[in-house]
Amino acid sequence: MKIFAYGIREDEQPSLKKWETAHPDVEVGFTDYTLTADSAHLAEGSNGVVTLQTSPYTRDALEVLHQLGIKYISIRNVGFDNFKFQDLNELDFTLTNVPVYSPNAIAEHAVILMGRLLRRVPEFDQKMDNGDFTWSPTIGKEYREQTVGVVGTGHIGRVVIQILQGFGAKVVAYDVFHNPDIEKQGLYVDSLEELYKKADIITLHVPLFDSNKHMINDDSIAQMKDGVYIINCARGELVDTDALIKGLDSGKIAGAGLDVLDDENSVFGKVWSSRENIPNEKIRNLAKRLNVIITPHSAFYTETAIHNMITTSFDSNLALIEGEKPQNIVDTNK
Amino acid sequence: MKIFAYGIREDEQPSLKKWETAHPDVEVGFTDYTLTADSAHLAEGSNGVVTLQTSPYTRDALEVLHQLGIKYISIRNVGFDNFKFQDLNELDFTLTNVPVYSPNAIAEHAVILMGRLLRRVPEFDQKMDNGDFTWSPTIGKEYREQTVGVVGTGHIGRVVIQILQGFGAKVVAYDVFHNPDIEKQGLYVDSLEELYKKADIITLHVPLFDSNKHMINDDSIAQMKDGVYIINCARGELVDTDALIKGLDSGKIAGAGLDVLDDENSVFGKVWSSRENIPNEKIRNLAKRLNVIITPHSAFYTETAIHNMITTSFDSNLALIEGEKPQNIVDTNK
Ligand SMILES: NC(=O)c1ccc[n+]([C@@H]2O[C@H](COP(=O)([O-])OP(=O)(O)OC[C@H]3O[C@@H](n4cnc5c(N)ncnc54)[C@H](O)[C@@H]3O)[C@@H](O)[C@H]2O)c1
Ligand SMILES: NC(=O)c1ccc[n+]([C@@H]2O[C@H](COP(=O)([O-])OP(=O)(O)OC[C@H]3O[C@@H](n4cnc5c(N)ncnc54)[C@H](O)[C@@H]3O)[C@@H](O)[C@H]2O)c1
Repeated sequence: MKIFAYGIREDEQPSLKKWETAHPDVEVGFTDYTLTADSAHLAEGSNGVVTLQTSPYTRDALEVLHQLGIKYISIRNVGFDNFKFQDLNELDFTLTNVPVYSPNAIAEHAVILMGRLLRRVPEFDQKMDNGDFTWSPTIGKEYREQTVGVVGTGHIGRVVIQILQGFGAKVVAYDVFHNPDIEKQGLYVDSLEELYKKADIITLHVPLFDSNKHMINDDSIAQMKDGVYIINCARGELVDTDALIKGLDSGKIAGAGLDVLDDENSVFGKVWSSRENIPNEKIRNLAKRLNVIITPHSAFYTETAIHNMITTSFDSNLALIEGEKPQNIVDTNK
Repeated sequence: MKIFAYGIREDEQPSLKKWETAHPDVEVGFTDYTLTADSAHLAEGSNGVVTLQTSPYTRDALEVLHQLGIKYISIRNVGFDNFKFQDLNELDFTLTNVPVYSPNAIAEHAVILMGRLLRRVPEFDQKMDNGDFTWSPTIGKEYREQTVGVVGTGHIGRVVIQILQGFGAKVVAYDVFHNPDIEKQGLYVDSLEELYKKADIITLHVPLFDSNKHMINDDSIAQMKDGVYIINCARGELVDTDALIKGLDSGKIAGAGLDVLDDENSVFGKVWSSRENIPNEKIRNLAKRLNVIITPHSAFYTETAIHNMITTSFDSNLALIEGEKPQNIVDTNK
């Protein structure tokens, strides 16, 4: 049995080696190339392919895999938008994804962003750069005094709630689906309006739909408390960046922690030599503020998450090869 | 009745005004001057004095207060080392302090320092400064995967434990006195050696004594795990800075978060134009590292802490004036 993996980064190799050692009967090959028509032949002799990339999987690439007799593709991430389901079906592929790899990675990142804003870390950092070792007047706030509005109580939102409760913060939550545990604790409010009214910090943990695109906009911001903090580690398009900038300018919004941004693909994943050279005016505007923290869609990026992405994708690929039906098969007939 | 307060900073004024409003029968005066022989006369007509300063309270200053008929001094902080008890006794003063103002302020700061190290925030910050929006290879670790060794389970250490448990981290604790709650949870190890052996992160929350000066030294570091993180938000002298630097150089220590430092008074509280100009070679050495975070003894500095320092000190001073015996009277006969 052989599995071939595409787009393997250096940080993935320790987990890959571990999986290989634990499965002496499986031959593992890999490359740092993404899966394209040119690189597809590298999988020759393999029973399945494990892959991860941000670019589309082309029909040409999939046809080469098909000609090599490969039937099983396992992606190491959640999202399968880079595949055309029609291609997969016509070429007879079965696809698995990794639906959950580490909610804690994102939840912990969101909570750390809150702490960095509450304790005014970017201002202290700037003071340090200037050799300024005074603490006054850069006074901080404590988590335990905050009411945090958690929008979305799925895998990630629930971990955020558990962490915040350890800090002694007050939590109010909103979700279209009520999780029984969170319900029992009486944390749900009935509407986003109510959450906006009560929360000192608002943190987003919902998927993006047409219906919630730019849910954080002029109108919703107007409903929030003065001096609110906004954290977005979900999807950039949930926040209208113009409205956010307006809110920061007026002081209505005290700060923002953003792991995702509308139109982030024009900026993220690349190197622009300085903040001044960021080629997107709005992101540049945000990146220069001392009360805004931007991270480059890195909330997920922990050793645990990477380990789980490798392990689950290889496990699933092997299961398919062995004729099993893992739970994380993607339904390509929708 | 009148209370006069010294060394009042701008960030203290909102809490002071609140206390004043809540006590219409008490006249409150204040100055930003510290209490010296020159400024002592400002308290004329007052029944008590509230004060906070890092410099010694001189005999001369206390004599002026005594001549003004003042008997009650309430400091807004914990430590009363700046007084000579003999002066206080001879001049017939009763002294109160604020033994606990906000353990959470320090505990939250310590935990945020851990998160900033685990997620390699200083490296991400530097990338941002360079307009670098890539996440690889700056991979982070999760709290929940860490075993944290908490040295000292007093007011602050216990809050640290509660927060870490919210994150799902494993905690081992050491204290010469066993707190019943922590004992019941089975968190205590029997020796520091055992804690050093088990902990991925070590955080100090003990007072400084002669016996534990430089408890973090070459010997104790040698007992720790490779890649350990050290957090010190207690007292700088607990850590031998030379040993810390050696451990960072060798990679034995993966990072450090330091709110206090041996000989911090030569550097903290002042402005040195840049990191290069820090006039203490060891602190300068630490301040330039991307895996060391220094904060200028600011862990305590939150709105809640300041509010509690003002409220408790004024409450205690008023209680003394009204002939009561608040619990936080400092025993000057020791
Ligand atoms: N920054 C990152 O690195 C990163 C990584 C992974 C996921 N994410 C984002 O985080 C989001 C949440 O992830 P998860 O694993 O918790 O997902 P999940 O599916 O477990 O939970 C999502 C929750 O949102 C709720 N929901 C859906 N639509 C809603 C709406 N309009 N209003 C309120 N609630 C709504 C659902 O009922 C569900 O409880 C993902 O959708 C993704 O956008 C970001
Ligand atoms: N960075 C800051 O801004 C800041 C602010 C306040 C306090 N502090 C420091 O934090 C320390 C802890 O504060 P706290 O309020 O939790 O104090 P505390 O008195 O409530 O707790 C201290 C604990 O340490 C234990 N202890 C004493 N000696 C010990 C030893 N040799 N080994 C192990 N345990 C020992 C005690 O039994 C006690 O449980 C203070 O002593 C002070 O140095 C720092």
